[in-house]
Parts: sequence; structure tokens; C-alpha cells
Amino acid sequence: MQRDAQSAQDPAPRRRRGGGRAGNAARRGSAVIDQPPWRLPVNPDRPVEPLDADGVQAIHDGAMRILEEIGIAFLHPEAVDILRAAGCEVDGDVVRMDRALVMEMVAKCPAQWDITPRNPDRRITMGGRYILFGNVSSPPNYWDLDLGRKMPGTREQCRTLLKLTQYFDCIHFAGGYPVEPVDLHPSVRHLDVLYDKLTLTDKAMHAYSLGAERVDDVMEMVRIAGQYSDEEFESGPKMYTNINSTSPLKHDFPMLDGWMRLARRNQGLVVTPFTLAGAMAPVTMAGAVAQSLAEALSAVVLAQAIRPGACTAIGTFTSNVDMKSGAPAFGTPEYMRATQMTGQLARFYGLPMRASGVCAANVPDGQAMWETSNSLWSAVQAGANMVYHAAGWLEGGLIASPEKFVMDCEIVQQIQRYMEPALCDTTPDAIALDAIREVGHQGHFFGTQHTQERYASAFYQPFLSDWKNYEAWEAAGAVWTVERAHRVWKEIVASFEPPAMDVAVREELEAFVSRRKAEGGAPTDF
Amino acid sequence: MQRDAQSAQDPAPRRRRGGGRAGNAARRGSAVIDQPPWRLPVNPDRPVEPLDADGVQAIHDGAMRILEEIGIAFLHPEAVDILRAAGCEVDGDVVRMDRALVMEMVAKCPAQWDITPRNPDRRITMGGRYILFGNVSSPPNYWDLDLGRKMPGTREQCRTLLKLTQYFDCIHFAGGYPVEPVDLHPSVRHLDVLYDKLTLTDKAMHAYSLGAERVDDVMEMVRIAGQYSDEEFESGPKMYTNINSTSPLKHDFPMLDGWMRLARRNQGLVVTPFTLAGAMAPVTMAGAVAQSLAEALSAVVLAQAIRPGACTAIGTFTSNVDMKSGAPAFGTPEYMRATQMTGQLARFYGLPMRASGVCAANVPDGQAMWETSNSLWSAVQAGANMVYHAAGWLEGGLIASPEKFVMDCEIVQQIQRYMEPALCDTTPDAIALDAIREVGHQGHFFGTQHTQERYASAFYQPFLSDWKNYEAWEAAGAVWTVERAHRVWKEIVASFEPPAMDVAVREELEAFVSRRKAEGGAPTDF
Repeated sequence: MQRDAQSAQDPAPRRRRGGGRAGNAARRGSAVIDQPPWRLPVNPDRPVEPLDADGVQAIHDGAMRILEEIGIAFLHPEAVDILRAAGCEVDGDVVRMDRALVMEMVAKCPAQWDITPRNPDRRITMGGRYILFGNVSSPPNYWDLDLGRKMPGTREQCRTLLKLTQYFDCIHFAGGYPVEPVDLHPSVRHLDVLYDKLTLTDKAMHAYSLGAERVDDVMEMVRIAGQYSDEEFESGPKMYTNINSTSPLKHDFPMLDGWMRLARRNQGLVVTPFTLAGAMAPVTMAGAVAQSLAEALSAVVLAQAIRPGACTAIGTFTSNVDMKSGAPAFGTPEYMRATQMTGQLARFYGLPMRASGVCAANVPDGQAMWETSNSLWSAVQAGANMVYHAAGWLEGGLIASPEKFVMDCEIVQQIQRYMEPALCDTTPDAIALDAIREVGHQGHFFGTQHTQERYASAFYQPFLSDWKNYEAWEAAGAVWTVERAHRVWKEIVASFEPPAMDVAVREELEAFVSRRKAEGGAPTDF
Repeated sequence: MQRDAQSAQDPAPRRRRGGGRAGNAARRGSAVIDQPPWRLPVNPDRPVEPLDADGVQAIHDGAMRILEEIGIAFLHPEAVDILRAAGCEVDGDVVRMDRALVMEMVAKCPAQWDITPRNPDRRITMGGRYILFGNVSSPPNYWDLDLGRKMPGTREQCRTLLKLTQYFDCIHFAGGYPVEPVDLHPSVRHLDVLYDKLTLTDKAMHAYSLGAERVDDVMEMVRIAGQYSDEEFESGPKMYTNINSTSPLKHDFPMLDGWMRLARRNQGLVVTPFTLAGAMAPVTMAGAVAQSLAEALSAVVLAQAIRPGACTAIGTFTSNVDMKSGAPAFGTPEYMRATQMTGQLARFYGLPMRASGVCAANVPDGQAMWETSNSLWSAVQAGANMVYHAAGWLEGGLIASPEKFVMDCEIVQQIQRYMEPALCDTTPDAIALDAIREVGHQGHFFGTQHTQERYASAFYQPFLSDWKNYEAWEAAGAVWTVERAHRVWKEIVASFEPPAMDVAVREELEAFVSRRKAEGGAPTDF
């Protein structure tokens, strides 16, 4: 059993690294707003655990019986062969695996592992008490306040959202495409967007598991950007993929193919079933969670069969549907509990966990904020390590919005501030008996030495909240949050400076893109 | 030591009472929206505890040293006399009390107690794992979307907000005035508003501790509305007051006077210091919490000296200031942690706890929602029993808004749904292995018997969230949350039916108001 020896409870050595290139990059680009420096937040709270030990066992047993008695369809002959060889029972494309095998394979998973992007100061750690936040991924549409309507995504909009991804130090990884640039032909889209991602950001990123050529191209571009040899590239994750099962109980060919390719090259592997209770999963949340776990664990078994010790994590995307329309709902009470329950089971299996920031709202309004807050806080409460879609998501993932991105970053920054131990310091200096004695029954604390020494950094300073009183706010134009967010993102994009990249590296990436385009890119018939 | 024997973990007998008058009232008035029935929510989560045992001791020791070494100014000679007689050390109006005395008095407080309003089915329980939500209290100003601006509150606006307070079953108590009706003369304002409160709602309510006449008038009106004899009135709380200390370290005359009057008549007593870190309290959150506790506990000691076993609770209103302007900030990361720390100390002392739903935003926009969500979730995480200002608060408490009220009720309903044990049911029916087997690898769960049997009640159904997709939402007018909230409150108010009250009781209240107005009401020179 391989376990990373580094303790998540003592991230100090890692944190000090942040003063290097990443720290400089943050300072260079931070003219528009003041923001806390890049760091890997550590969640100090005990997770919220709605299940008792029997509840955990009941869901575990449910997941195991699904794997033992019903099985998972693997629509990839090679995956089936690998699982058969590992000891699974195969019936056509349905693979059944007993719990002893599952637990043996799960025990091979590292509890904590790193992804090191081209800028090593942006290295992120999956697992332990770390909680990392990523941008919105994969909406086919875009909305902003200038436009005032939904439209299919473009490369320029994608670049806008990548700039925000790079700009905000509270965003730790670049995930998938922040909006799908449908103005780029699917055969070459991955080449252009990866070029944009690698040149506009220096954060950890993702390959869609959508066909062999795409996956291999992305790995090669990430390798070039980091100037790694093949051996260096394979020494530990430099990127990752996230696959979704085709619920119920099925993994399709392209997802499995990408999963296996990344497993073979020792890259990061995240599997996130999309189990909507009442649609692709039971209407009862515990059943939906059990099914999600069965689907996820079956992919983990495959990865460990290919490479014992493969860097795997499981995600949750269990929510419920609107009882009126059947449409997916997000950030609901049921969603929160499903996320927390999945967190309990992820710890039971010793696997890093992914959750998400989500909402069903169509515009960045009040509903968008309460649904997003609910989902982000449930990720914190669940002890999630990786929070996908933490900034910019609307309409159940069908729209990406820069205003929403900026509003979400305000919440994400506040969550990261909330996790700082300094807020709950109870040393004598913090109890401040002398200051209380000095002020006594009449004065105030503004002018005390105790306050003056600590004032500048005592409290979180939001960049988007407007704390003026009504009259001052009105005199300043009575600007509502979404309009303030609009101004912020326009300024950030207007003054954006990309992170440093050697000219030679950029040219090598350009040459790769040109060559692969000349070869026709990737097939589009999958 | 008096402790209520009823277990908060087993609220079933209380819950069944909800089917009576309250249940009927809820159904009668619920034409505009579907809402879950009235109930007393039980918070099943283990509180978030940022402090370890040493941290709890450090804050406790800080609070005790403040009480022992610095003391609290009690600007009420009778209060000082009572405390001297109880064993406190008196120096002018400054009262010092040693920790043995404080803990002896705190031990007399019941850990759980009820408030029974005129409709006994609306009885609420303070303490244990109960968490109760109240309307916004005391803003001097009002804002709604028709008006589009801030204006001083009126009686009609106050009545509007009282109707919303009554309408929503997720709101358990009527708190103070939901907006200050400044069109009513201060000498008679309490008479008119209490008349409105007692006739428009049947929920537990509050007397401002702002002068002897006001306090006595309110107690008398609540007694009349419930048709209690004096003896019955004093058999247990039928109402409560909430007092704020004048931080730092001071209780003023009117607040103490009301506190003592209610203590003598065995009504509910909540003390909530308003300790803004960096202004009226140390810039360090633990110091601000320690000071808040010292101020609160000193009032608890006074109450227990007057009536051993008096029904007391402590509140927290510890937040931070804007570093730029000195203005209060709300719903911040620091606010959340202060609330959680206070919750730990409230449990240490065995006292029910009050927290709040708050924001600094001036309008019901995105900022309003993330600040309010932060504060409401921190109340849940803190194990708070009473959540003031849970619906309708804006601009740091200077504005009440019906749109915000409705938006907040959506969040509060979701929080209450989140607490239902059914969401985390792990019985075999919930794991649903048979349904998963039935659907297999191809189908969906919409049509299964398992889904059909549970569909109608499986998920929370929001009344304000719009879960339509973008195109359907656009076709329906592209209505943002705040506009939807506007329509909802207008409909609720237009179709509002007040709760039942016997004509004779109403006439008795009217006669009391008329008589007291003829007598000149209350003096306004305090």
C-alpha cells in the first residue's frame, strides 16, 4: 500500500514555496484588486458527518453489492480484458467484482498525491485536508452583462475565462475548457484551447477523455510546456483527467480509453459519476450515493489493475431533479447531504474526493448565490479536496459567465480566509485582556496600540462586496453586485499579463499545434 | 439546578402538536406558495468547533478575568444593589464578580425552556438541538422594489412585514418590530405595533426594554391576547426581551430595567452584546468573543439573582469592521468563526444561544445572499437555538425589505429541509438495491415503482428558485430573483388572512390601547 508520507496537517514547507514564481506572478497581475496570495488551503474543520458508522456501512455494503451482484458495463474490450485478468467476473461487457478485490485495489491508491504544472510553484496536492478550487469547466454557452443573453461559446470568451482563471489566486487549477469554443472545429479545438490554456495560465490542467488523439495531444503539449522528458513526465502527475460514468452503471469507450492512457503514463485520475437521484439513480439519496460510489470505485479498480499506486480520486455529482420538469437541480439540501455522505465514504476508502460549486440559476442573481453558497459550503463540510466549477457556472453547467466567475471568487476567497487558523487564535495576545482593561467602560478600541498593531491584516477585505452605507452606495451610482462584477472582470482582462514562458517553449508548442493541425487533428466520428 | 427534562433529541411529541391550530392556520394561508408545515427544526449536525478544549478554556478564562478584574458597569442602582447582595464587589456602578459566583449563577439557568404565545401550537423551545428562526427586527428604514429607494419605516410597511412573518411557517417567532414605524409617535408606537403584532400574528414575540411603561404595556397586552391570569402569565415565558449591552462592558438603565421586569415575571431573557471587533471590542476575534461573553454572563447573573432558574439565553453579535471606513461588516469569515466560537462557549455554560442572519449589502443582490448565507450557515454550524433577523435584513440592519424577506425564507426553508433525517436515510429501501438491479445498465429510474412511490415528497421544492432552463426562463419573461420575490410578497400580502382571534379578545386589546393612549402612552424623555 503506497501512502504519501507528507502530513496534510503540516503544510508549512509546501506553503513557503509559494513565495517564488507563483508569488511574483500573483503580485505582477494583481493591480485591479488586492487578493490574498496563492496558497493551498487546509480545511481545519471536522467534516459534517450525517451518517453514523452503521450508515457508512450500509452505503458501503450497497456499493459492494452493486459491484458484486449487478456489475458495471465497461464498453471497452481492453478494459474488460484487464479486469478479467485482475480477477473480475465478466459477462459480455458487464464486469462484476467482489468486495475483497475492490478493497484490495482501493488499498493501492495513494491517499495523497500531487499535480505539478509547468510552473512548479503552482503544484497542488490532492488529499489530506487540502481543499483546492477550480474554474468552471465545459459549459457550451456563455453569458455576460454586455451580451445580456446566452450564446454558444467562442475561443475569445474561453480566453477571457482563462485569464480570470489565471488571475485569481484563489483558483488553483484550470480544469477543462471554461467554455466550449464552438467556433473552433472539433478536430482541432483541443489543440487551440490547450495552447491558450498553457500560455495564458500556469496552473494544473486537465485532458478531456474524448478520444485517443486528443488525450495523447494534450499530454504531449503539457510535456512540452513543462520541458519534461517522457521519463520526467511519467514520474508523477503533471496533469489529470476527469471522467464521468454513463449512469446507470456504465463506462463508455472514450472515457475509459483516456482513463487508461493517463493511468499508463502515471497522470492524475478523477472519476465523477453524474447520478441524478430519480433519473439516472434511485430517488433516495443514499441509493444514488451508493450507485455513484460503485461506478467510481469500478474505475479505480481498473486504474489500479493497470498501474498499482495510480493517482486516483473519486468525485460526487449526485443531485436531485426538479419534481415538476425532471430538470437537474443543484445546490439543494439533498445535494448538500449527498456531498457530505460521499465525503464520509471517500474517507472510509482513503481516497481523495472531488465536489463542485453548482447552481441551476440562469443569471448571476440571488438564486445563483444561495445555490452556489450551498454547494461550496457542502464541499467544505464534506472534506472535499478538489472543488470543480467553483467559479463561473450557471444554468446547471450549460452557461459560463465572467460576472458569475468574479462573484464566486469573492465567496471562494472568503471560504479560504475562513480556514485560516489566525481567526480562532486564543493566545493571550488574542484574548487581549490588557487592551480590554485599557479601554475600560467608556472608550473604544480604534485607537489602542493592540488594534493599531493588528488592524491592517486583522480582517478579510473583500474585493467585490460593497460595505458603504446606503447613501454613500447610492451616491456612487447604486451599483448592484452583478454590475460591480462586470466592471471587475473587464478591468482584469484589459490589464491581463500572461505568466512567463520561454519563447522557445512557446514556439515548440506552436509548432506542435501547426503540425497536428496539418495532420488533420483528431477524428470527429466518435 | 433546574433542567428541562424533555429531550431535544426526541421532539416527536411536540411535533405532533403542530397538526392543530397552527397546522390549520398554515394551510389556510398558504395559497400563494406551497410550504413545508410549521415545525420546530432539530439540528442533527455536530457543531463546527474551531476551538480545542484549551481554546475554550482560554476564552472562558478571559471572560472570567474581565468579570473579576475589570468588571461591568451597571447603570441601574437597583441592579447594582441586587448584585452586591448576591456577593459581587461594587465600586460605583462597576460590578466585579468572581468566577465561582458566576458559575454558581449560570448553573441555575435552565438549559432548555419554552415560550408559549397566544396560540399554544406556536410554542417554541429554546435550547437543546432546536433551531428557531425569526424575522428581521428594528431597522429604521424600508426598501422595496416599487419604491426603489430607502425611506423611514411606516406602520403600513411594518404591517406588511408582520404579514410575511405570520405567513411563512419557517419563521418561528416575531421578534421586535420588523421595521420601525416612525410615522407613529414614540410615546404610543409600542401600543399600535403590539396591537398589530398580536392581531396579525400568533407567534412568540418580544418587548423592547426601552422604559418601564413600554415593557409593562407589552406584557399586559400579551397577557390579554392569551387570556392569561397574572398567575398563568408568570408560570412560564409567554414572550421575551432581548437586551444589548452598551459595549464595552456596560449595561444601560432602560435595558436593565426591562430585563429585571421580565425576570420578575418569569418571561424569556436574551442578552446579546454587540461587540464589533476593532471598535467596541478587541480587534482579535477571541478577545471580542470573551468580552461579549463577560457582558452577557453578567446580565445572566443579575437575572438568576432576581429569580433563580430564570429563563435566560446568550446571544452573539460579534463581527468585524470595514478596515477602510470603520463601518460594521456582516456575514464575513470572521463573523462566522466568532459565531461558532460563541456556540462552543454557550454549550460550555449550558445556555441556549442566539445568533443572527445578517448582511452589509444595501439591496437584495448577490452580495446580500452570500453574506446572509454565510451568517445563516454559521448559526447552524454554531448550534444556535434562536436565529434573529433570519429574513428581511439589509444594510447592516438599517433597512428592512420584503423582497429580501422572501429570498431569505427560501434559504431558511432549505436549511430546515437540510436538517430532516430522511435525507440521510440508509435503510435498505433507501439504498434501493432492487431498483438499481431493475434498471440495470440501460434504463432510467423515472418510471420505476421505487421512484413513483417516493417521487412527490422525495425532494425539497423551492417556491422562489427558478429551475427552468434558460430558454424557458427567457420565454417566461427572464425574471431575476429579486423581481420574483417582489411578486411573491405582493401576492402574499394581498391574500393575507390574519390568524383567528376571538372578537372579545380583540376588543379588550383595543380598549387597552385606547386607554393607554388617553393616558399619554410612555414618556419619551429616556
